[in-house]
Order: sequence, then structure tokens, then C-alpha cells
Amino acid sequence: MLPKLYIDLDAVAHNYELCKNFAPSAQVAAVVKDNAYGLGAREVAQKLYRDKNCRRFFVAYASEGAEIRPVTPDADIYLLNGFDTTDIDLIKQFNLAPVLSSIDQFEKWQQSGISNIKPALQVESGLHRLGVSYEEASALSDAQREQFGLILSHLACADEEQNPFNEHQKQELMRYKSLFPNALFSLSASDGLGLGADFHFDVVRAGAFMYGLKTCPPLNDKQKQVVCAEVSVLQSKQLQTGDTIGYNQTFTAKRPTRILALSVGYADGMLRTLSNKGSVFFKYNGNWVKAPIVGRVSMDIILCDITDLPKEIETAPKAFILNDVYTLDDMGRDAGTIGYEVLSLICNSRRWQKEYIG
Amino acid sequence: MLPKLYIDLDAVAHNYELCKNFAPSAQVAAVVKDNAYGLGAREVAQKLYRDKNCRRFFVAYASEGAEIRPVTPDADIYLLNGFDTTDIDLIKQFNLAPVLSSIDQFEKWQQSGISNIKPALQVESGLHRLGVSYEEASALSDAQREQFGLILSHLACADEEQNPFNEHQKQELMRYKSLFPNALFSLSASDGLGLGADFHFDVVRAGAFMYGLKTCPPLNDKQKQVVCAEVSVLQSKQLQTGDTIGYNQTFTAKRPTRILALSVGYADGMLRTLSNKGSVFFKYNGNWVKAPIVGRVSMDIILCDITDLPKEIETAPKAFILNDVYTLDDMGRDAGTIGYEVLSLICNSRRWQKEYIG
Repeated sequence: MLPKLYIDLDAVAHNYELCKNFAPSAQVAAVVKDNAYGLGAREVAQKLYRDKNCRRFFVAYASEGAEIRPVTPDADIYLLNGFDTTDIDLIKQFNLAPVLSSIDQFEKWQQSGISNIKPALQVESGLHRLGVSYEEASALSDAQREQFGLILSHLACADEEQNPFNEHQKQELMRYKSLFPNALFSLSASDGLGLGADFHFDVVRAGAFMYGLKTCPPLNDKQKQVVCAEVSVLQSKQLQTGDTIGYNQTFTAKRPTRILALSVGYADGMLRTLSNKGSVFFKYNGNWVKAPIVGRVSMDIILCDITDLPKEIETAPKAFILNDVYTLDDMGRDAGTIGYEVLSLICNSRRWQKEYIG
Repeated sequence: MLPKLYIDLDAVAHNYELCKNFAPSAQVAAVVKDNAYGLGAREVAQKLYRDKNCRRFFVAYASEGAEIRPVTPDADIYLLNGFDTTDIDLIKQFNLAPVLSSIDQFEKWQQSGISNIKPALQVESGLHRLGVSYEEASALSDAQREQFGLILSHLACADEEQNPFNEHQKQELMRYKSLFPNALFSLSASDGLGLGADFHFDVVRAGAFMYGLKTCPPLNDKQKQVVCAEVSVLQSKQLQTGDTIGYNQTFTAKRPTRILALSVGYADGMLRTLSNKGSVFFKYNGNWVKAPIVGRVSMDIILCDITDLPKEIETAPKAFILNDVYTLDDMGRDAGTIGYEVLSLICNSRRWQKEYIG
């Protein structure tokens, strides 16, 4: 009766293909950090390597790179959060390329004595998170700059298509071109993809879009959903008018009300901000019917109001908190956050049993 | 450079002892569901079984019960989320007692033919989440009612000491006493403990308080913190007045500003609502110094403003997002939620390396 995640790897591959076709002048790398945002880094990387010939992957940490190396034998694997000295053994053993983001990191890299791996360099273009400045990059020698195989930066406002800061960042990145004439350049992740071909540079880093987040308006209609999340129904209960529900009595029945208790909660990554806001779904005659979450989301249980649903739902054994009509983005909106956080928290929670399709 | 959790099992045992001394007329059971709220169910259960003679444990699912059975050989283990037929093998093999919450579940239990395990029964006292009503319990035969070893209910507003609903729920539970004259009774979890001895009944279910949440005002001063969370510093960066930081430019430097990028984010359970709200800490001359989080919390990185801190912090290799002065409750407040959610999301996130003390 543990909650269950159905993960459609064919849909991931389909979405990856959409990105490739949309950015024909660039290579499309797959971002599989954070265990492929919870979906399973090995499974996703293997699928894209085998079926889609993907040969470039981004993770955050060396241990994440080591995890996918067995299924991506000759691919380039980059470590977005750089490295420290404790990572050097993994880096050597699994041939991982750190993304260096500061002169400090570059100096540590030189001290490591590794010469057969070309690191990437993150450069500042306006996000002010990680990356060396133009002045710092200029101060490196030609020989030092030639060590880098990939120059990378990251957009701050790619989800705001009209924001002029996108163009500003693109122009900033262009300045580095003359410093690194032989390196590949990369600016856009999933949400930069839709900004146009001049944002694609040499390498687009696809993550969120592949996993079903609607980050790319020109492609959102063709995208397939990847995640479906099924939970057990624990109990059906009839309430009287005036009865209160759940912690701190945040919901009061305004009429005779039928509720179901479902076996899922914030321990499973279902954010507590969904209290009295989110929805759950049931299968009924081949369609989805929807019930509102009532009362507080608690650690292992949520409650929903099925008073207006067909009588048969009272005995439904299963409910769905994510499906093809209520997506990660929908839950993110209802929870007051973004689909990325929902995806990462739910899919990395410990209890979900994962079943892969494709 | 993965983020690191220090988990003080001696502090857990100390906090458990505080509960025991505060509820001398009751047994204190340990709630270790959800992997002991992320801290490690096996480690916590073993500590309490060995060092504190704890012989009663609550988990949510059968698989969680199976996980702690090897370290709690002769203890009673209860399954708060009940059972379904797929759990029966685990229940038999590991001698687990489901908490039945509906007549449906009771009928399924009888059909299972298991006779050597005494289940618990959850009864309705006002939370309206799980539990049979007084009328349903009354309709059972004497022989059926005698099958239950423990009668359990749960408070809705235990964190609101003055709420009369607490007394109402206690009185409701008392009504069931005559129906189950030989069973143990349990009403209070960690937050009901402080409401007074008449809320303790036979079994108090201690969870959150043991793990460092301040749920029991009479004991909060004596409680020890359990979790300390350390993350790597990725980069130090100097900003100019007017520079914006992070996704969607939600923070603008109003003066020359020194920021540090830290290797942790919402993929590690650090809620995105901490954007521009939370704090991080550094060790300096044996004390803690504090820096505000600036800009959006992103998936793997957060930024903090160290402009007002001693110069040496610029080269600090590590920062702390939870410690003994900035607790789970503090982070919960800053994130607009409760410490329970913070504890469960952070400690169950996949990347944290756990180091146990005690």
C-alpha cells in the first residue's frame, strides 16, 4: 500500500526528441542531477543514451556522475556544482568533468594534476550565482583558457519571455567568445529553449521540459506527461454539518460531507501549502473525476471531499495526486511554488515505489 | 562535498527520557514512521530499544515495520496507516500490529485469519481523519472488541493549549473506555504531552519532541537539538550596487555586497519559500554568525549576503543551515510552515550524508 509513481521513460525520450528537433543547430544535453529530479538518474540516462544517442549529461555532484557512468560509458558528464578535493578519486575513476565557477576552483583543479579531462567553465552573465567574471577570464593566459572544453552560463529570467534581461545575458555571454575561440558554448536550459535559436549556442541543457514541466511555450502542446502518482484510500467517512476536519480545524463541513482519507502526506513530498487548496483525482468510467483537498495536509495522510462525486468513488481503492490532466505545474501553482520543486520533492521522497514504462 | 547531516542519537535518547519522566503513569512509545521523520528509523529505534528499554514503536507502513524489526526483536510495532492485503506477508513475518481505522479494515483483518497478533483500533474523537465512530465500535460484539490490544485516537489542536476542543476530544475518547475495558488507551502524541497527565492515558506516542521540535512547553527548555546540517561553500562573489541576484531578479544589491553561493537547494528539502527569508550560519571564533538568504532558493544552490560578517567568512569552506541556535522550528517559521515538514523533507532528501553521534 506504499504510494506508487509511474514514470514514463518513453515520454522522457519523446520530450527530448522535441528539444532536439527544436534546436537543430545545437547539441541537446540531458540534465539528470538530483537523481534526474527524482525520476531515477540511471533509468533516464540509460534511456536517452541507448534510444536517443544522447552523449552529454549534466549532474550536480561527483557521486551523481559516478552513478550514471555505467549506463553512459563514453558520454561527457559534467558536474554543475564543481568539485572539492574529496571528489578527486571519483572524478578520475569515472572520468567526470567539473564545471569550475571561480578562479579558486580553477587553481584547485590545476593542483589536482588531472590532465586528461577537459573541465567546463561557468562564466558570469548576470545571474550572479556562480561563475567567473569577464575580467577574471581575461586575466587567464591563453594556455589556461584552452584547457576548457565548454563555457557555460545560466539565464535568470528565461521564464519571462519579454524580459530584456534575457537579451542582456546573451550579449554578455557573447563577449566571452573571443576569449575561448575553440570551446563549445552553452546558455539555455529547458526554459531558454523557447527564446529562439540565438539562445541555443552549441549545447542546450534539457531537464525540466523532458520531465513534463511546461517550460517551452512553442513545444508545450506536443509535450507528454511523464509522472503519474497513485496512492491508497484508507477510509471513507460521513461528516455532519459543522464537523471540523484535520489539524487545527481549518475546514468546517457546511453540509453533510463525504470525505476520503488518502495514504500520502508531506513526508511524501506533497507540500503542506496544498492544505485546502490542491486536488486529487479518481478514475471513473474511463475518465478522471476531481475532488478538492480539505483540511491540513498532514505527514502521512490527506483528506478530500467527494460529496459531489459519483457514489462509486466511496469505495475506490486508489486515488491519483498527479496525472496527465493535473500536472506537476498544476500542483506547483496550487502549492504556491513551481513545478520544479514539486517534481524534486515528491519524486525523491523515500516511500514511492517506482514503476517504469518504456 | 555532498551536504552532511549530523544526527545526535544521544539527544534523541535524552529527549525520550524527558518524555518518560514527564508522563510517569504512561508508557512512552516511539514514533519512527517516515524513516524516523528522516533521521533513520533503524538507528533511532535501535538506540531507544537498547539504551532506553523502549518496547513500543509506531510506523506508518508494513515495510517500515519490517525495517526496524531486526533491531527491536520483542517490541510491539504498530502500523498507523493500517494495512491492505498486499501487506499480509510482511505482517505475519515481522509480527506487526496494524492500527485498524474502519469497519471495512476490521473485516479485512478478520478475513486474513491472523490470530496471534492483537491489532489496534483507531477511534473517532473529533479529528475526522481516521477512526471508527462510537456507534460503529458499539455495534461490534464483545468478542470482537476484545481482539484489540490498544485503542488510539489523535488530537486536532494539541498545539493550541487553550483550545477547548482538546478537552472535548479527551471526553470523547473516555466514552470508549467501557467498550474496551481491557485495552490500553492512547490519545497524545508529542504535542499532547504538555496538556497534562489526564491526556497521557496508557501510552504516549513521542515523535516530534524526541527529534527536536518544540512541541511541549513544559519541557522545551530541557530539550536537546538533534540535527545539525552542514553544506559546502561554492563561491564568494562581490556585487555592485544595482546588481540583481538569482532567478527572476528578486533581490537587488542596495550597496556593494559580498555573497556566498552554498551547495544546497530545494532538491535537498530546503523549501523554496525560504527565498529572501531564511538564514544560514557560519562558525567564527567558536560562535555562530548569521547571514540572510538572498534571492531565490534554487534546486541545488542558495545565496547568502555576508557583507556585514567578519572578513574571514569569505573563505569559509562550510556553512550550516540548521544548528542548535537555528532549529527546525525556526526554519519552519521562516518558510511559512511547521518544523515537522522541514524535518521530514530535509532529512529524507536523498543527498544528505548522515553521520550519527551516540
